[in-house]
Amino acid sequence: MSPSLAETIELMGRQARAAAYRLAQLGSAQKNAILQAMASALREATPELLAANALDMAAASDSQQAAGGPPAKVLSAAMLDRLRLDESRIEAMAAGIEQVATLADPVGQVIESWQRPNGLCIEQVRVPIGSIGIIYESRPNVTADAAVLCFKAGNATILRGGSEAIHSNRAIATALQAGGAAAGLPEHAIQLIPFTERESVTVLAGMDRWLDLIIPRGGKGLIETVVAHARMPVIKHYDGICHLFIDAAADPAMAVALTVDSKTQKCGVCNALETLLVHRDIAANCLPGIAAALRAKGVELRGCAATRAVLTDIAAATEADWRTEYLELILSIKIVDSLDEAIAHINEYGSHHTDSIVTADEASAERFLRGVDSACVFHNVSTRFADGGEFGFGAEIGISTDKLHARGPMGLRELTSYQYRVRGTGQTKGHES
Amino acid sequence: MSPSLAETIELMGRQARAAAYRLAQLGSAQKNAILQAMASALREATPELLAANALDMAAASDSQQAAGGPPAKVLSAAMLDRLRLDESRIEAMAAGIEQVATLADPVGQVIESWQRPNGLCIEQVRVPIGSIGIIYESRPNVTADAAVLCFKAGNATILRGGSEAIHSNRAIATALQAGGAAAGLPEHAIQLIPFTERESVTVLAGMDRWLDLIIPRGGKGLIETVVAHARMPVIKHYDGICHLFIDAAADPAMAVALTVDSKTQKCGVCNALETLLVHRDIAANCLPGIAAALRAKGVELRGCAATRAVLTDIAAATEADWRTEYLELILSIKIVDSLDEAIAHINEYGSHHTDSIVTADEASAERFLRGVDSACVFHNVSTRFADGGEFGFGAEIGISTDKLHARGPMGLRELTSYQYRVRGTGQTKGHES
Repeated sequence: MSPSLAETIELMGRQARAAAYRLAQLGSAQKNAILQAMASALREATPELLAANALDMAAASDSQQAAGGPPAKVLSAAMLDRLRLDESRIEAMAAGIEQVATLADPVGQVIESWQRPNGLCIEQVRVPIGSIGIIYESRPNVTADAAVLCFKAGNATILRGGSEAIHSNRAIATALQAGGAAAGLPEHAIQLIPFTERESVTVLAGMDRWLDLIIPRGGKGLIETVVAHARMPVIKHYDGICHLFIDAAADPAMAVALTVDSKTQKCGVCNALETLLVHRDIAANCLPGIAAALRAKGVELRGCAATRAVLTDIAAATEADWRTEYLELILSIKIVDSLDEAIAHINEYGSHHTDSIVTADEASAERFLRGVDSACVFHNVSTRFADGGEFGFGAEIGISTDKLHARGPMGLRELTSYQYRVRGTGQTKGHES
Repeated sequence: MSPSLAETIELMGRQARAAAYRLAQLGSAQKNAILQAMASALREATPELLAANALDMAAASDSQQAAGGPPAKVLSAAMLDRLRLDESRIEAMAAGIEQVATLADPVGQVIESWQRPNGLCIEQVRVPIGSIGIIYESRPNVTADAAVLCFKAGNATILRGGSEAIHSNRAIATALQAGGAAAGLPEHAIQLIPFTERESVTVLAGMDRWLDLIIPRGGKGLIETVVAHARMPVIKHYDGICHLFIDAAADPAMAVALTVDSKTQKCGVCNALETLLVHRDIAANCLPGIAAALRAKGVELRGCAATRAVLTDIAAATEADWRTEYLELILSIKIVDSLDEAIAHINEYGSHHTDSIVTADEASAERFLRGVDSACVFHNVSTRFADGGEFGFGAEIGISTDKLHARGPMGLRELTSYQYRVRGTGQTKGHES
């Protein structure tokens, strides 16, 4: 490990901590003015952003074509699309920053307050977390989205984007820093790691003295690396193996509509449906209609033996299917004997992200909601609504599959901590006891 | 690593997960009945507990005397005292369980609920965390205290106590399990690791599939080991380097009283005072009286150069003193030029646990409370009040020095997570967009 890399990142950590103390003292109006200035600066920097992005796109295309040469990172068409910036994407980033400026500031909110018999007045008040490391992959817009959300909640950030987006990320960070500074953004409030070496991730993950939290945004491999090395808390956004359970008392038309929407409205996202569970009593009746609707949308079906007795022309689902997040137009289907079997299957094979029941029976719905151990449990709702925007959070940093601190869609409030402020009149413990 | 040890602990993890699902379905009345039964069983097992504890005490005393023999663990008199059980300590454990039964159950509480324009009704509801590993040292009472608090919040526990208390811990766990089972405690809700090998800690820390959280309760070495190995979230209870700042506008009598109470009411605990900061404008006036009162209690003083110009006969405090949690009758004293210098010193040298200001100036107090980055910030209050009991939580699992999930005194509520329960009428996202 190059000493200068580690030393540089260590210095950035120390600077982030100092910036965090200044950020914690900013009022909402000042933070919003800074956000407006950052949005304007980003728009004005459109030519610079496009030029920087062109360098990244060219490098990515070169490595695409370098077959036979030294092992180069090969980017898929989807990854190239994620990497690409254009005027409308830059405008969307700027508009996103302005949107964050309109959100209520959680910092300073009194969560609870009470008085003790001895006269102590206790307030539990939301405060920023402090300094947050964000480690992400190819989308350059995360540079702006994550940094401004953390900033609005009063946190300093150290950003470490994918090496393939380094020019774009630098240009975005420079625009945010310059625009923000003119409006009073504390120095080092938003820092971007300038290195593309992989060691920068492990150095960052070991810096628990300077970073209070790390949020990895990306694939399973990235999250695993961070979890293995991190000494500070990590909020993970693992995959979504989401289920829809069609209960015996389901309305058949609603069962079709929710299955189609959950699976096909957008299939490459974490809140899309991956496994359909159907109650035995309704299976023969409703599965043919569901299958027809899904096939019309181009969905490949895989089923358990009982399902294949009804849908005789589909492939068999294997044990691995129940644990797979396809992120494609593939759906596994299983017939279960009871609500309890559905709940047990979801808790065993799911990823505790989002699971929904379709039923007209309120008692069954309540048992499902209480029995399924997932961040989001739905009754008669498409799984696609598991989203900070749909929940009304205004913006989200991601959907946590952790149970500690933040679970499910994470908005601004989940980017804060709290402290107890206690006011007294000279109370001593010795005089009490 | 013995495979049977790892396999046994892995099985316990799987069992804890299964038990957690059953625990999540228990109502408050049933949990309270189980707690009453556990308290009774513990009282009835007094002879067995005393006999088991005698084995631990004998082994500890033997190892005390085994100088010259093979390297044995040497327990200090204080550790021997922590290890010891007697009838009154067993009664206190049983009474503690009954106290937990009287606390309000956080599980099922609706934290917030709202309706979206599309008709979705969203509820954020407290649910148990799931399964929790507790790793602790010599006090056998932690076996009961931690297990019942986790249980009341609906969590399964795997306990790993210190090897020196293994007989006592087994006897306590057996009594809790047997007493609870008769009243409906799910099997494997409370499990004690039967091994004394150190590998059991690392095996436990690697089991993120089965454990949602680890709470280490003990010294810095234990916490460091857990942090280094844990793949799941850890809630840490590091040390308390607590400060009292005597502002220029402090009432002199209150300054003396709060200093003496914070330092001497009980000095071996994390919320005791370790460093006194005094505003330059009041130092010459108030330090002699404070020093006299502290010396009357046997406190050794160490000061900065400016302090030693006032208290000429005290030792010099070194840089290391400002970072030391003495847990003894020693106090370091530093004179600062301003409130801002006090805040900066606390944020730099403190442990972000508990810090207090003494002042009659409300504006200074508010600046202190907002500027100090600690779990508990006090105005005109002894630092000794940083405690779940004093805050009215009824019982506490510890005082978190983390900022994520739980900060400061942790009660029952901090042993829960939440989930979003969303009820709709067939909403699909496709129809919306």
